[in-house]
Amino acid sequence: MNHASVRKYQDKAVSDEQLAAIIGAGQMASTSSSVQAYSVIAVTDSALKAELAGLAGNQAYIEQCPVFLVWCADLYRLREVTKPHLQGETSYEDSTENLIVATVDVALAAQNAAVAAESLGLGIVYIGGIRNRIAEVSELLGLPELVYPIFGMCVGYPDGASSLRPRLPLEAVLHRNRYNAETTVEQVKTYDKVSSDYMRERTQGAKDTPWSVIMAERLAQPARMHMKEFLLGKGFFKR
Amino acid sequence: MNHASVRKYQDKAVSDEQLAAIIGAGQMASTSSSVQAYSVIAVTDSALKAELAGLAGNQAYIEQCPVFLVWCADLYRLREVTKPHLQGETSYEDSTENLIVATVDVALAAQNAAVAAESLGLGIVYIGGIRNRIAEVSELLGLPELVYPIFGMCVGYPDGASSLRPRLPLEAVLHRNRYNAETTVEQVKTYDKVSSDYMRERTQGAKDTPWSVIMAERLAQPARMHMKEFLLGKGFFKR
Repeated sequence: MNHASVRKYQDKAVSDEQLAAIIGAGQMASTSSSVQAYSVIAVTDSALKAELAGLAGNQAYIEQCPVFLVWCADLYRLREVTKPHLQGETSYEDSTENLIVATVDVALAAQNAAVAAESLGLGIVYIGGIRNRIAEVSELLGLPELVYPIFGMCVGYPDGASSLRPRLPLEAVLHRNRYNAETTVEQVKTYDKVSSDYMRERTQGAKDTPWSVIMAERLAQPARMHMKEFLLGKGFFKR
Repeated sequence: MNHASVRKYQDKAVSDEQLAAIIGAGQMASTSSSVQAYSVIAVTDSALKAELAGLAGNQAYIEQCPVFLVWCADLYRLREVTKPHLQGETSYEDSTENLIVATVDVALAAQNAAVAAESLGLGIVYIGGIRNRIAEVSELLGLPELVYPIFGMCVGYPDGASSLRPRLPLEAVLHRNRYNAETTVEQVKTYDKVSSDYMRERTQGAKDTPWSVIMAERLAQPARMHMKEFLLGKGFFKR
């Protein structure tokens, strides 16, 4: 309940033991029929972190954090290890279903890892910005076919406190036995007020745009329109 | 580290307070730019649980568990609440990028909820089987456009212990600064032995198929090939 993204880190290493514990906890998350369709690249090399920070839209904390994890959906390993058993039989790693499976698998593992990191006194922030220039990120990390970097994650010791951001009212996301389209939309009015108050307080009165207006600006942006072509190019969701 | 899927539940209710705590913890997971692009349907109605169990391939624990959560990627709420601010401007909720965003958002929330449930002494199992007949599941739950049910989750008090299933060696999923295609494939040989031993022990010698062979059988199955058409029909990843 106390999760807040950390965007400022102490100059203090994360040990190999900590990293192993974090990724190990990630691996214990549920995985669809045991496919474990993910890989994670732990980036500790300073020059590489600086390049990735640039590609992700100049997010300085990617450089500052001691370990930058790049979480990847990975069907490459699965294809390679099953090939010898299939003897040329058709296989369906390129289906939309398997793209969803791999995308969910990596997210479940990453969130378990995030909780584990926080339980060790570390802080994290997810970085969707690595999809801004996803082809260059993939090239830089040597990602083969059927692997795509879905998000990054800074890990390190927090420098200062982060404030908890209010979430939608429970009633907006929790439905009983049937989707309630009216309630979910109606509840946003309450949240617009809560999020606006939170913004105003956090910016000493400089900003108080309601959530739904910020979301409208976001949806009106043609963001990362290369994703479909990129994923097809990597061998995903061909059918 | 002690997560194991629970497929047998006690006949004991999950309280409303527990449910609120579980979903509340889910909501505190990271979300891409605060979009919170998910909904969860808590199914407690017995007849509805029975129908869903049937649609998911006759998985009896869906009926047995006191609460069956259906986690949905949800861009409907976002589209509806932003409409008044956009005044007919183009909006991009139908992009592949936003499908990925929503899919990740719901998975992060679900995994936080899973950890919260386990911390309360409850057990869970993810149910991908709700995608077997995803159109009928969606209809049954009244899911509108731009909402898709990604997985279910049984929640309840475990009846008996579940065994921890071994995962891939850490070195198979954790890469250092660059993807190591050789190592990730090589490590599966070790895992094939580990998973085969685990199977043999668990089934009193009846089964010992190595992981890579099971995975080959899985990949050779044209499973849920309706997913692409279904998602397109729901308004997702049109571009």
